[in-house]
Amino acid sequence: MTNLKNFVRVIPDFPREGVRFYDLGPLMADAQAFSELIGRMEKGLDTLDIDAIVGPEARGFVLGGALAMKLGAGFVPVRKAGKLPSEVVTFRYGTQYGGEVLEISRDAIREGQRVLVVDDLLATGSTAEATCQLLEKLGAKIVAVRFALEITMLGGRDGLAAYDVDAAIKY
Amino acid sequence: MTNLKNFVRVIPDFPREGVRFYDLGPLMADAQAFSELIGRMEKGLDTLDIDAIVGPEARGFVLGGALAMKLGAGFVPVRKAGKLPSEVVTFRYGTQYGGEVLEISRDAIREGQRVLVVDDLLATGSTAEATCQLLEKLGAKIVAVRFALEITMLGGRDGLAAYDVDAAIKY
Repeated sequence: MTNLKNFVRVIPDFPREGVRFYDLGPLMADAQAFSELIGRMEKGLDTLDIDAIVGPEARGFVLGGALAMKLGAGFVPVRKAGKLPSEVVTFRYGTQYGGEVLEISRDAIREGQRVLVVDDLLATGSTAEATCQLLEKLGAKIVAVRFALEITMLGGRDGLAAYDVDAAIKY
Repeated sequence: MTNLKNFVRVIPDFPREGVRFYDLGPLMADAQAFSELIGRMEKGLDTLDIDAIVGPEARGFVLGGALAMKLGAGFVPVRKAGKLPSEVVTFRYGTQYGGEVLEISRDAIREGQRVLVVDDLLATGSTAEATCQLLEKLGAKIVAVRFALEITMLGGRDGLAAYDVDAAIKY
């Protein structure tokens, strides 16, 4: 089995001083490691009848597109303000880097849809938490929340305790 | 066969007046239509021994992730300036909306790698053209260039005449 940590590049002081950045670039660029990562992320999800995968901009898009293929689901992006061309639902929340505004197409999620939330990194969990809250407000059922990589000491799972949460790589 | 055009939302005057925006959001959100799109995009590519798929930020990421899964390749992002954490190669070019700066990780592409360039939209082709030129400078072999949607009247193929270019949906 591939040790995926060998493909993660840990970069100090990015995007700002004191922050350690976990770069999945080398992992996603390697065909075998990427396939192994997606395989681990989708484990146990193939029987859950997932309609749509929701992923925030922008690294969540790569994982979301790959998982949509594997699970036979659609993909719905959550984007930074002003990027989506049609009518949107906007939500604001705080992250470790300050305030953020995210948007999702108003008609992208239908009442009762079974949704998997995907992102590259679980740090404080604020983006995923805000995304889940928004999706539930739109009537979606959050089937699971999956990350490529989790920094466990930041306790991001606490705010996601209501959901089935897991990560393929843990630090 | 699904008529993919039924899932494309054409939005006038976005992101600015006089520009017609082809929104693939509804298509990617629909499991069947998304699967059909990716199937059409990868047609004929599975025997070409592709090492990596390169896609520009951010919609190219969804398609690139899905195609990486289908073709057993890695994925390498091309990003807006300042987003990549490691050493990058920067390139500047003109688009229909003005000047752009894009970056790719310096170590992501190795000499002789067989690369598929993927993006959502072929309009003037300037982004794809600049991406291909950069990849060739890094020593990659451009096996093919694939788009979800092509606006044929904008003549984007002209600048890409050296490559095997196709799009799944044509307007």
